[in-house]
This record gives sequence, C-alpha cells and structure tokens, in this order.
Amino acid sequence: MTLFSDQKERKASFWTRRQLLWWGLTGIGAASAGMLIKSGVNRFSSRVKIPPIPEITDISNGFNPITLLRDFDYGTLKQENGKRVREFEVIANSSILQLNSAITFVSWNLNGRVPGPTLRATEGDRVRIIFHNEDGHSHSIHFHGTHPEEMDGVKPVRHGKTMIYEFDVNPYGLYPYHCHIAPVTRHVSKGLYGLLIVDPKKSRPPADEMVMVIGGYDINNDEKNELYAVNGIPNFYRDHPIPIYQNQLVRLYVLNMVEYDPALTFHIHANLFRVYRSGRSLTPDEETDVITMGTAERHILEFAYPYPGRFMFHPHQDTIAEHGCMGLFNVLPT
Amino acid sequence: MTLFSDQKERKASFWTRRQLLWWGLTGIGAASAGMLIKSGVNRFSSRVKIPPIPEITDISNGFNPITLLRDFDYGTLKQENGKRVREFEVIANSSILQLNSAITFVSWNLNGRVPGPTLRATEGDRVRIIFHNEDGHSHSIHFHGTHPEEMDGVKPVRHGKTMIYEFDVNPYGLYPYHCHIAPVTRHVSKGLYGLLIVDPKKSRPPADEMVMVIGGYDINNDEKNELYAVNGIPNFYRDHPIPIYQNQLVRLYVLNMVEYDPALTFHIHANLFRVYRSGRSLTPDEETDVITMGTAERHILEFAYPYPGRFMFHPHQDTIAEHGCMGLFNVLPT
Amino acid sequence: MTLFSDQKERKASFWTRRQLLWWGLTGIGAASAGMLIKSGVNRFSSRVKIPPIPEITDISNGFNPITLLRDFDYGTLKQENGKRVREFEVIANSSILQLNSAITFVSWNLNGRVPGPTLRATEGDRVRIIFHNEDGHSHSIHFHGTHPEEMDGVKPVRHGKTMIYEFDVNPYGLYPYHCHIAPVTRHVSKGLYGLLIVDPKKSRPPADEMVMVIGGYDINNDEKNELYAVNGIPNFYRDHPIPIYQNQLVRLYVLNMVEYDPALTFHIHANLFRVYRSGRSLTPDEETDVITMGTAERHILEFAYPYPGRFMFHPHQDTIAEHGCMGLFNVLPT
Repeated sequence: MTLFSDQKERKASFWTRRQLLWWGLTGIGAASAGMLIKSGVNRFSSRVKIPPIPEITDISNGFNPITLLRDFDYGTLKQENGKRVREFEVIANSSILQLNSAITFVSWNLNGRVPGPTLRATEGDRVRIIFHNEDGHSHSIHFHGTHPEEMDGVKPVRHGKTMIYEFDVNPYGLYPYHCHIAPVTRHVSKGLYGLLIVDPKKSRPPADEMVMVIGGYDINNDEKNELYAVNGIPNFYRDHPIPIYQNQLVRLYVLNMVEYDPALTFHIHANLFRVYRSGRSLTPDEETDVITMGTAERHILEFAYPYPGRFMFHPHQDTIAEHGCMGLFNVLPT
Repeated sequence: MTLFSDQKERKASFWTRRQLLWWGLTGIGAASAGMLIKSGVNRFSSRVKIPPIPEITDISNGFNPITLLRDFDYGTLKQENGKRVREFEVIANSSILQLNSAITFVSWNLNGRVPGPTLRATEGDRVRIIFHNEDGHSHSIHFHGTHPEEMDGVKPVRHGKTMIYEFDVNPYGLYPYHCHIAPVTRHVSKGLYGLLIVDPKKSRPPADEMVMVIGGYDINNDEKNELYAVNGIPNFYRDHPIPIYQNQLVRLYVLNMVEYDPALTFHIHANLFRVYRSGRSLTPDEETDVITMGTAERHILEFAYPYPGRFMFHPHQDTIAEHGCMGLFNVLPT
Repeated sequence: MTLFSDQKERKASFWTRRQLLWWGLTGIGAASAGMLIKSGVNRFSSRVKIPPIPEITDISNGFNPITLLRDFDYGTLKQENGKRVREFEVIANSSILQLNSAITFVSWNLNGRVPGPTLRATEGDRVRIIFHNEDGHSHSIHFHGTHPEEMDGVKPVRHGKTMIYEFDVNPYGLYPYHCHIAPVTRHVSKGLYGLLIVDPKKSRPPADEMVMVIGGYDINNDEKNELYAVNGIPNFYRDHPIPIYQNQLVRLYVLNMVEYDPALTFHIHANLFRVYRSGRSLTPDEETDVITMGTAERHILEFAYPYPGRFMFHPHQDTIAEHGCMGLFNVLPT
C-alpha cells in the first residue's frame, strides 16, 4: 500500500466512529445502533436488505441490467504457494443489442454483456483473468492499476486465442478495464469495458452496493454518440426503476466509459452523495449531488434516501440524459 | 446535518482562527483586527463596504446584471409551529432579451430575470416557494438538495397554475434550481434556472458577496450555444466592470448552468481563489485560479485583490469567453 | 503566503516523515534511506539519476521534445536592493513545424519552441521577463498568478517592441502563461503558451522532474483541433519513448493548454499517480490514474514505476490520444 492510503487511514478511524453513529441514527434506528455497538460489524452486515428484484419480461439482449447492478464476480478462489488467487474467465464475442424499439447495434462485449463483468477482489490478492477471444476481431483487456508490461493488455489477442492476465491487485480502489486495440475509441464504444473493484482488507461498512457503468453508442460511425446508457441498455432504469430501501446506505460504484464526449457529470435527485474519488479512500473527499467525470474516471458515491418515492439519476449534461442516460430509483419504505 | 459537515467543522475551527488573522492583516488592517477580537463578528460584519453601483443607462431587458450580482432574496420570514419559514414568490414568464446590438432572444425566465432570483435561507429553515406559471408553456422548478418526491419539481405546472414547493433546507451548501420539463436542455437554456444558497447556522465570515450564474444561448436551435453570459446578458460586465474594493474579501457564488457544452472552467486574472466545493465546507478544498465545472456544478470562490485596477474573469475555454462570457472587476483602492 | 498554504504545511510535516520512509523502501533501498536520515536532503538530492538521453536524428523543428522535458529556465540571478531577482528573456516569433510526415503548421512561439520555456523561480523571488516580439503579429504574455494590472499582459506588444513583465512570485505553485491577444483561441493554439513553476522555499523532495504541456492544433481553421501534442510535436514520445528509471520518483508538471476542447484527462498505464492540484500543496490531494483537466488547469503528478518496460501515457479521451497525444515511458531497470 502506498503512503497515500496511510494518511487516509488515519482520517478513516475518525470517520468510522462517526459513521456508525450516522447509520445508527438515520439508517437503522437507535435500537439497532445500540445492538451494533455491542455486537460488531458482522451482525450489522446481515442487516443490509436487498429489495426483491422486479421480474423483467422484455429482455432480448441476453442480460438484464437490473440483475447486473448487483452482480459481482469474485472469481474462483485458489491458494497457490500461500497466496490467495482469484481466477476469472472472460470471453469476448459479438452480439446484437436492441437499444430501443427502433435501433439495433452490433456490440463487441465480454461475457455476453455490456458492460463486462464486475470483477471483484481484495487488496493483495493475485488475480488471474483467463481471456478467450471468440470474436472475429482482435481484442485485449487493458487493466488500470499496477502490473508488469506484459500484463498491460495493449497487444492484440486474435480470434480463437487465449491470453492470461495475471498480477497482484494493490492498493484498494476502482480500476476500469477495457480493450486497448486501435482504434480504442471504436473498441471501447462497441462495449468492451468494465470495472474491477479492489476492496480494502478491512471491508467498507455494510451497504446495498451497486455498479453503474456509463457508455455511449456511436450508431452511425460519425465519431459522435447518438445514444448513451447506464449499464448497456438506454433508458432501462427509467422504464424499470431500481428498488432500494429508504434510509439504507447505498454504495454506488460509478464509471464513465463514454468515448467522443470529453466529460459528463453524474447527478441524483433529492439527495446528496459523498464522493470517494477513484475509491482510493475510506473517508469522503466531498459531498455534493453533481460530480464531473472525464472518460475512465470512476468514483464511489454513498447516500441514503430519507424519503420514499421515485427519484431520477442522470448526467446533468441534459442532452446526454435525453439520449438514453436517464434512470430512476424506486425508494421503498422500510 | 450529515457527518460530512461534522468533520469539516473540526477543520473549520483551525481555519477560523487563521482567517481572522489573515483578514486582519490584508483586508482590514491591524487596528481593526484588534477591535474584531474584542467585539466579535457583528461589528466586523459592518466593516464590509460595497462600492457605489455605477448608473447603467442601457438597460432594456427589465433587469440590471450589476444589481443582480448582490441581490439576495431572503423571502418573507414567518414563524409556524415554532419553525422558521421563508416564503418566496417565483413567477415564470417570457420576455425578449437584447443579447447584443444584433441579437434578440425570447427567454423563458423567473421573476423577469435570467438567472432567476438568488433565494437564500439558513440551514434548518423551511422554505416555501410559491411558483406561479404565467408563461404559455408548462414549466416547473426542480431544486437540488434533499426533499420528498412530491417536492422534486419534475411534474409540469401548466399556464396559469400555481405549485407550492415546500421542504426543509439541510445541510448548508449551494443548490441549483431549474425547470425540469422535457426537453430540459431547451427549458434550461431558455433561462429557467437560478441558485438557492443555504447558509450555515453560524454564518461565514464577512465578505462582499456576489452571485454569478453562467448560461448559454442556443440562438438558432442547433443544440449548440452561439452566445454565453454571466448573469444573463453577454459581455455585460466587460462593458460595465464590477466595482470591488482592494484587499476586501470577495465571496463569489458561481454556478454553471450551460447546456450543450459538457464543462467549462472559471478563471480570474491576477489572483488565486480558494474553492469551497458545492459550498459544503467552511474550509477551502483547494487554491487555484482555474476550476473545472460540469453543468450544474457550483462552488464558492473567495479572494481579495491586493492591487487596484481592472482584471478580467472568464471561462478559460477561450472560445466561450470570446462569445459573451467575459467580464471585468474594477478594483478600487481603499 | 496565504493561509491556504499554512494549513497545507501542517499536513506536510506528517507527509515528509512518511515519504522519506516510502522512498527509502521503494525508491532507493533501505541502506540509502538510512544514509538519508543522517545526511539530509542535499546528499539525497544527488541520488536522482537521469537516464542518458537517446540521440534524436529526425529533428527538423528547431527543438527536441526529449530535451525540452527536463529543460528548466532559472533565468539570470541578480540581487537588487536585497531582493533576489530572476531575469528571463522570451522572444516571440513564427516558425514552421513539421507536425507529421504530411502536415506542416505555421506556429507562433516563444524562444523557438512549443511550448515556450519552462520558467522556474522560488516563492518570494522577483521575476523580470524581458519580452521581445519579433513576430509580425502583436502578442503579449499573460501570466497566471498575482500581479498588478500593468503586469497582466493583456495589452498588445507590437512587432519589434519590448515589454518587461515584473512581479513577485507568491505563493508557490504552477502558473500557466500565454498570449492574451484576441482572438486568444487563435494565439494560444498557434503555440504561444508555457509554464512558470514557483518552487516552495523548502524544495520538494528529490525526483526526476519533467514538464508536459498538452496543446491542440487547428490545422484548417475550423475551430476544432485536428492534431494534439504533448510538448509540441504529435506522437513524438510514442516514437521516442521517454527513458526513466524503475523505482525512482518522477515528478510531472502537467498543463492542459488545449483550446476548442472543453477538457481532457491525463492517464498513465500500469501505475497510479498522486495529484497535487495546481501545485498548491506539499501533500497529495488524491491518488488515481486518470485526472480531468479543463483548459489552463495544471497539476503535479508523482509516481514511480515498480516494473521495467514500456508504458503508455495519454488523455483517456481516446480520440485525442489517437490524434497525436500518445506517448511512452521506457522504464529502465536500476
């Protein structure tokens, strides 16, 4: 771990004490906060409740953005020479996405979904990503984060070939991954991207955790995006609001992978969120409701809704919101 | 108040002691700093001097951007069941703006001005915004910040109708507001936006306070901005420099409400400013002279000019500056 | 020095102790870290090793971006009335740049190079920039930072004329400079910009220091950039990778001077960097590998590569990277 974490840890101890209090008062109620202090984090953890997932009938794309929100791939756990190894399988291929009632799009994707799987490991783990390319074009996976040159994923893996990316994940934080074959703009905007979450060794406080990866679609190859989406399908969460519970902490892992547009913001209605920039801290960097993110920037956003109801989230570049990048939380009373 | 504020408050106590010293030395002089320590903040506050406002004769738009700078609407104060309530009246309508000698523009606006009124309350107040729509189109006011679903301002208020938005403002900070009727890009860029300032209970140190809201005008409906303005009228502060006093603290409330452009920066000449991101802190987040702001981002910027003279401010995307978004401070010797 | 620095200094003392340890463990080895603690910073400083510069044969532009990386202009040092003065000579002129095998471009530049010279002084110094305009057009140098009105560089200096800009540099930080003659977009994008580094009085820890200024070229005068470059020549560092040593701290002074595009990011492969925003701190503001920078934003980025090999750096707006803004570090084993 670098020194940076070190200083942040010191701040964290202050925060941990305070956050327990905060969750106690606003998230769980005074009684359970009392229980918490006595019984520790494990019992607290079991208090996170995930609302029932609404049944979606209009799925024609091979994946359901509602389940994808909370779908974390922890890989296959192995012990090798005293080291914890997580082995992941990622397959590149093509598929046709029905982006809306009028527009289909040939995506290049990983494991049949856009974005690719949310890989998840713990600081210090070794990760081994077995990458098969079943697509007709050459692809690769470039991971953000520290690793040797040969693991940097900038060399093409041809159709039918396999490449194993292997490295230790350190320090904790959020790491985008994406194809790095030229033109990168094209390979990324076709759908070849996702997020690797590296958790700190002492895990973050319990929360309803979700991933949102924002992408753009250049339908007519004019190097501009005609459609945008959170987790692959434009307006999906507008038409299928995301159920969350009132007063329960939500931890959102947000990544901007939009090509061609220089930056976007992420905004939630009727609330503020606390920002953990690049996930590289255990204490918030700021509190706001609009955060600017250049391409490949990613942050953890935390919030709890005090009121039930339906609340929008979208980039505040409203032209992006109006072209597919609009969603709703459905906050259920507890 | 959330925990976030709490941690910031602790930093603030250090800052408060230091800032008094700083203002004493650079803003007020050693003698009055001594007075300050004895007599407290109220007497200090009376030391803020506002320069005489230059008479403007070429106002044809129904509002004067020079007076609008320091025009804060505190509403009508009421006590209801032991709670402090601030009641505001906001009326939507249309008006023709003379943006420059050649170009007129049909604005949709609030209280006859672009931006709308700068509403101001104190943390914990209840605010009640009585919104009348006298315009021919349906409009609404969506406030940033925490409130119930029915107060979120995403439902249209038709011509001739009134909607009352009411909620408690908490925590302190800067909250943009704007029409949220589709297409939001159009309703915002026509002029339906403004800023709600929620002051901390213990007010910020005395300063010459001003509001600058940056907007864009899409004259020819091509979803691009042909003109930009700080506080409604392009180049107004270039042609009518803003008088401020040398060595006196200026507190600028800056909001970016430009649609179609993903981000802009705010820059002042010949000085640095301290940034309080989203106004959610009593201590600065950074010190610089160029800050990037995505649409709907807003910050407090503080500075004092050590030299008299005329100094520009503008986004450092110079193409935006060159299309109406250029102004001048006229720093007067004290 | 403003209060801002003051608070940051306090954080710095914690960091300094920790950073010595960090450099000891990862950058220099335990033995030399021990020496350091005994012998102080000066001996440590001599430990920074600069790799041999590769010979470049295809230079046809009058300057070599590889040498320009580490080329700091400290001016001519003088003592005047007990004050330390640094005198710089800067000459504006035109030259033809071969941007790639097909495209030449008439640049307007300072001291025959794009970007202009990296001026360097220490907090509290007086700087005197003797600016001669030998170009056919009127130009100026506007410096960011604090100075009187007459030193603000917004007035044209005509062909053959000389203007002396003189002011005290305070506080430490990074200050862009650029021509401020209208249209500024044109004068900047033609090449009239550079960086002034103001070092803190107690210098930053030893590192291999480099400057990267990112610019855009509007070849066909359509107010869009067709090419981009780090330090003047598109793709130069892709074709001539920058040698650095494994495990040695690199301190990068990065400035975005791209007109017409609202923002870009800076990204390095296979590593994280620590960000010192605007160079206005001795302790990092965050740690990441992608940072958004609006036009005229500039930061210090620090990192050390743990593995040898070739690693890309580029804006993560990949369309910018693909149009000339791609480079490589060649990390040499130690």
